[in-house]
Amino acid sequence: MNAAEGDRVRVRGPDHDVEGVLMPSSSRDHLVVKLDGGYNVGIEREPSSVEVIDEGVYDVDGERSAASDVEFDDSLPTVSLISTGGTIASTVDYRTGAVTAQFDAEDVLRAVPDLAGRANFRGRVVANILSENMTPDVWADLAHAVYEEVGAGADGVVVMHGTDTMGFTASALAFALETPVPIVFTGSQRSADRPSSDNVMNAVCAVEAAKGEIAEVLVCMHENESDDVCALHRGTRVRKNHTSRRDAFETVGGEPLGTVDYGTEEIEVRGEYAERGERELALDPELETDVHLLKFTPGTDPSLLDHVEGSAGLVLEGTGLGHVHTDWIPRIADLVDAGTTVVMTSQCIEGRVCDRVYDTGRDLLEAGVIEGGDVLPGTAKVKLMWALAQDGSTEELFSTSIAGEVTDRSVPWT
Amino acid sequence: MNAAEGDRVRVRGPDHDVEGVLMPSSSRDHLVVKLDGGYNVGIEREPSSVEVIDEGVYDVDGERSAASDVEFDDSLPTVSLISTGGTIASTVDYRTGAVTAQFDAEDVLRAVPDLAGRANFRGRVVANILSENMTPDVWADLAHAVYEEVGAGADGVVVMHGTDTMGFTASALAFALETPVPIVFTGSQRSADRPSSDNVMNAVCAVEAAKGEIAEVLVCMHENESDDVCALHRGTRVRKNHTSRRDAFETVGGEPLGTVDYGTEEIEVRGEYAERGERELALDPELETDVHLLKFTPGTDPSLLDHVEGSAGLVLEGTGLGHVHTDWIPRIADLVDAGTTVVMTSQCIEGRVCDRVYDTGRDLLEAGVIEGGDVLPGTAKVKLMWALAQDGSTEELFSTSIAGEVTDRSVPWT
Repeated sequence: MNAAEGDRVRVRGPDHDVEGVLMPSSSRDHLVVKLDGGYNVGIEREPSSVEVIDEGVYDVDGERSAASDVEFDDSLPTVSLISTGGTIASTVDYRTGAVTAQFDAEDVLRAVPDLAGRANFRGRVVANILSENMTPDVWADLAHAVYEEVGAGADGVVVMHGTDTMGFTASALAFALETPVPIVFTGSQRSADRPSSDNVMNAVCAVEAAKGEIAEVLVCMHENESDDVCALHRGTRVRKNHTSRRDAFETVGGEPLGTVDYGTEEIEVRGEYAERGERELALDPELETDVHLLKFTPGTDPSLLDHVEGSAGLVLEGTGLGHVHTDWIPRIADLVDAGTTVVMTSQCIEGRVCDRVYDTGRDLLEAGVIEGGDVLPGTAKVKLMWALAQDGSTEELFSTSIAGEVTDRSVPWT
Repeated sequence: MNAAEGDRVRVRGPDHDVEGVLMPSSSRDHLVVKLDGGYNVGIEREPSSVEVIDEGVYDVDGERSAASDVEFDDSLPTVSLISTGGTIASTVDYRTGAVTAQFDAEDVLRAVPDLAGRANFRGRVVANILSENMTPDVWADLAHAVYEEVGAGADGVVVMHGTDTMGFTASALAFALETPVPIVFTGSQRSADRPSSDNVMNAVCAVEAAKGEIAEVLVCMHENESDDVCALHRGTRVRKNHTSRRDAFETVGGEPLGTVDYGTEEIEVRGEYAERGERELALDPELETDVHLLKFTPGTDPSLLDHVEGSAGLVLEGTGLGHVHTDWIPRIADLVDAGTTVVMTSQCIEGRVCDRVYDTGRDLLEAGVIEGGDVLPGTAKVKLMWALAQDGSTEELFSTSIAGEVTDRSVPWT
């Protein structure tokens, strides 16, 4: 075989005839070819004939080779691709079968040839971690990076991120940044080696959204199980509602802000949004990180609250309209008296908390608990981190929608 | 006005003409009349004419008067109504406007005249609490009460319960009891004084389900926002997914087992179920209550796990396929080594955990974490309490569906 990794090749055998880019393979028995759709396929080396169609289009060591260098095109918008890790930026370790994060933004561009020609791309790596390892420190680094990219003239930003905690990070950026351009999170529920991988379509739609008019922090992921449309969710209202489906992400309590058609590249807008250029770029990334989220479930002793004694903030995931066992209330009152800000949300996920209806709730309000409205519990944790770092009343900030995180202002039963 | 509380009356005025049962009212200005649909309406005393249609049909002190005594009817099945409290068994304190639990099962029967003639009813009060105050002790009392009622010949049982933690209690009974008859939980999302109250339809449909063929622990609540159909959810798969909607309850990851048509009383079955008489009555209510549920969110320090040191069991609500920050893993390994059984579930709510895909998950499996499949986190807590009180391997019990709590046996991405 005369083909080198990075060459565009045609591989033929008794049962196959595929064309794509030859990828690194540590297997003695199998070649790995990345198809134009972005999927990697493994092909037995024997018996296969490999024909080189185009030499060195892609350099597998991380730099694009001269042949593939893309000139800056004045007629195209500039999109910054910021990588934080996750499945969309990961590959499969063929020795172990495990998925590990190891690509930077440039690699993703190379892995998704379909992105070429859609924009002038700037690549940047902020982290290389699976999203369960995200921390408020990385949120702050990312907010700074996005701020710099937009300040340097990017017409839109795409953030590649693991899906597990994407909603938390998107919320953090929504509170930390005022943005005149779209900031679009995207990720992948299935790694690139799976036939059902969603990484190509999600990346392409995210770039299209970054060129679009919705200048908010968005999450762009499959809208349904087909490969035709991505939904654009507001970062503060989105939730990963399924462990594995490609359309796992949903806007809670409403419709997505819009959709991107993968075929036509058309963006259809469904809700009210901040328009491109409407806001001035501003950064306010300070977070009070001594904030906790605890979930109440039956049989949970109030001594769980000992863990958060003396801390700055606590978000409770209560039951129903925002309740906990009556035994918890004096303990919560003590926390509030000692200076901890306590916000109530609901583990129902959908709907608004309202602590004025039942005895338990009214006792909680008397104890000094702040009602979180219909803010999602995870978003509430991020918002409380942000609010406690602001001057002024946290209670007032929680009665206001800062970044679209509170939607339902009606009494819950009307 | 010659009418007494409990009389059936017709109240006419310039703008109204209503018929119903005169209820207690502490207001000097307003009468309260319970309409036949079960709704209470307030009517200005002046100018209204009150005509007594039927004297003392209902005795408001808690005993039905002689006029309303229902004879035992051999042709009807016997349904036990067990009250534990909650909105369905509550009334409004007209002085404060707050809703407090104060009715027992007999009162509910009186408050819902539409139940009469559907069965011979046995009333029983196990508790009188809002469901955020439910504890494993009350679950055990309730399991005993249901066991006794079925043993005494009840053809079905209806449990009136607050909605907040109904799914937890239903799960507890599903693990504790083998039942030859339906055990149907029902409740109310809106109290009886609201025009939109759901208590009458839910109670009627629950009684119809208790007379039916699905001999499982069920939750019977509005299927949609209309007043026409209740859904019958399997107790271990149901979740309150909205704080206030009447159709807040949903079967997660599948269809409800069936529906009850409020108008025709027809039960339509959608899934596989245990049939009436298929199982022998058996009770196994032992629970290990030293079991905790903790949710991982970004920024949560592993020191949260200090709280559960030395405890019998821990359910984790991880991210995505079942992940936590890498820093948590050695701490979890220590817990497992010290004898705590740790089960992983997902905060996604829908879908199955799978810790064999990513590094984090494989490290968790190596640390000794048990995968919870697609069991709901709340149900997992109850199941772990039950499993730890059984002889034999908890891991094996978690790889098996005991009461329909695990549904999805496929690899998550196929």
